[in-house]
Amino acid sequence: MKRTVFFVSDHTAITAETFGRSLLSQFETVTFERVTQPFVDCEAKAIDTCRRIADAFARDGQAPLVFSTLTDDHLRQILECSEAVVFDLFEAFLDRMETALGQPSAQAIGRAHGLGNAALGRGRVEALRFAIDCDDGIGVDAYDKADIILVGVSRSGKTPASLFLALHYGIKAANYPLTEEDLNLSGLPSNLRKHRERLFGLTMNPERLHQLREERRPGSRYASLEQCRNEIRAADGLFQAAGIPYLDTSTMSVEEIAANILHRAGLQRMRW
Amino acid sequence: MKRTVFFVSDHTAITAETFGRSLLSQFETVTFERVTQPFVDCEAKAIDTCRRIADAFARDGQAPLVFSTLTDDHLRQILECSEAVVFDLFEAFLDRMETALGQPSAQAIGRAHGLGNAALGRGRVEALRFAIDCDDGIGVDAYDKADIILVGVSRSGKTPASLFLALHYGIKAANYPLTEEDLNLSGLPSNLRKHRERLFGLTMNPERLHQLREERRPGSRYASLEQCRNEIRAADGLFQAAGIPYLDTSTMSVEEIAANILHRAGLQRMRW
Repeated sequence: MKRTVFFVSDHTAITAETFGRSLLSQFETVTFERVTQPFVDCEAKAIDTCRRIADAFARDGQAPLVFSTLTDDHLRQILECSEAVVFDLFEAFLDRMETALGQPSAQAIGRAHGLGNAALGRGRVEALRFAIDCDDGIGVDAYDKADIILVGVSRSGKTPASLFLALHYGIKAANYPLTEEDLNLSGLPSNLRKHRERLFGLTMNPERLHQLREERRPGSRYASLEQCRNEIRAADGLFQAAGIPYLDTSTMSVEEIAANILHRAGLQRMRW
Repeated sequence: MKRTVFFVSDHTAITAETFGRSLLSQFETVTFERVTQPFVDCEAKAIDTCRRIADAFARDGQAPLVFSTLTDDHLRQILECSEAVVFDLFEAFLDRMETALGQPSAQAIGRAHGLGNAALGRGRVEALRFAIDCDDGIGVDAYDKADIILVGVSRSGKTPASLFLALHYGIKAANYPLTEEDLNLSGLPSNLRKHRERLFGLTMNPERLHQLREERRPGSRYASLEQCRNEIRAADGLFQAAGIPYLDTSTMSVEEIAANILHRAGLQRMRW
């Protein structure tokens, strides 16, 4: 069973994709063909979107679903005339929000909506720069400026997590790879000792780590299950002995790892 | 006028934050105090959330707003008993989705929801590695593996855009800074010439660039308005002469820059 799904927005469509995806995840047995239509900000583009919807209907023999964050009334009416089943975020909630807040929405009074906090957001750009400059054990001298320092063996997900923390939450995250040499020490590497309260460990089940490392260097000692077992055992032991909070990322997405770290470490995110 | 807003989820709360933020942006005159409650996955945490809501109500003298993506019926009922105005994503749309798809949702049949595509997603991790390895003019030898190469003067937003393209869309983006030396050439730098079809320019109004550079090196020649004007004029001229598509990022967020590039360059994003 296949259904075509459209994500329609007058802007980036990131919100439409996010809320739509969350709802679609409730229907695991259906195969969805996803089409994103961002920047639908005039009549011509709205009509073009309706044409694509009609084509999908003809092809599938079933009405497409549409997740929409269009704000302009006229464009929403055009979309409503399509033969799709439209899930409209603003229609669903805006009336009740106006009542709760006791005032009209920007859309109701004909103003454009203010999504996307104009310009790059200095905090995030700085945090990204920091994550790159302190990736994979470099930039140790700047660790005293870090909000958090992620620690773990190679391929435990440190770099993606650092970057996501920067990009999404404006958090300055360094990351430090625990090498075999580090793991043979008794106690923390000297680089890390004075930053103990800001360390956060990432771990993973050895089978999953083995699989990830095989993708990188197939058949190597580095990727062998035995090596992975030894490193993970030593890293977990280190986290426990040093009292470092740590997280098992075996089944987690980047988003989940970052949100867990933020929450468990009680980090203060950038104003948003 | 101040209102407290809660984003409540049994998971990362990223969806709750995204759809809530989109709706809140329609009310620009209200000041919102934002509280995120992720991982509300048991009765005790739901009750604790209700307690925080009650505290906020007492403090503000007005009912807090709640944006929720809770899926469990029992937890949702607990939240409904709070004194907040609850905007519940699943309640708003799930019934109609079940009707449209002709089948029950996972939630309806008691299964957990499948948000967060288990594990890190290899494509994104590879794309992130690529973006870091080809940041700011390094890794030029790997440019033939790039999906896109962002080109622009210093501080035009290349690095954040490259990383966002990787993290959100799984796109391999290199980025190359146009130096004064490059801009004095007639035509494209030799490094870039053979990759012309994959180049994408970022530009900005000189005043905005001046402002960003002043934050980095106040009072420098590098940051002076005159220097910014000259570089932008030369860069725009280069994009036009070489037929490179380009984007003015002056008022854009990272999300907007990335979504624009994806859309205009017609890039094929990772399956999602």
